[in-house]
Amino acid sequence: MFVADIRIKLKKGVADPEGKNTAKALELLGFSEVAEVKTSKFFSIHLDTHDEAAAKAQVEKICLALLANPVINDYSYDIKKVA
Amino acid sequence: MFVADIRIKLKKGVADPEGKNTAKALELLGFSEVAEVKTSKFFSIHLDTHDEAAAKAQVEKICLALLANPVINDYSYDIKKVA
Repeated sequence: MFVADIRIKLKKGVADPEGKNTAKALELLGFSEVAEVKTSKFFSIHLDTHDEAAAKAQVEKICLALLANPVINDYSYDIKKVA
Repeated sequence: MFVADIRIKLKKGVADPEGKNTAKALELLGFSEVAEVKTSKFFSIHLDTHDEAAAKAQVEKICLALLANPVINDYSYDIKKVA
């Protein structure tokens, strides 16, 4: 079995209102060192396969088919073998 | 300047409907190898400080004050120095 840790980021230049609001809230709470906040989404997917190459191919397809919107998102992932 | 990559996970046993729905959608799309999907939230925070210990202390406070709900969330982070 493999676990894929997939991170779905916003592309450069795409507005991140949640990040902006978080930065604003932190400023209001007194965290004056905070210069910028960017948010992204994280998916841990357990894949029932014994072949790392197959797992990687699946994860690429999953990102393109469902998790990432290619207009606004970049994605990256790590795949680890688990017992 | 430091960048803190903060991951806000759901605690074990806390329902993750978004993960469950993602798993269901992947199953319907034909990804039969998917055994489980867990979601989490990711924040990249740029901190305008030159001291790693201070950055770490800030990140701990930020997680407890705003980003994580201690009832349902665990948090973890990496801090990297950037130019």
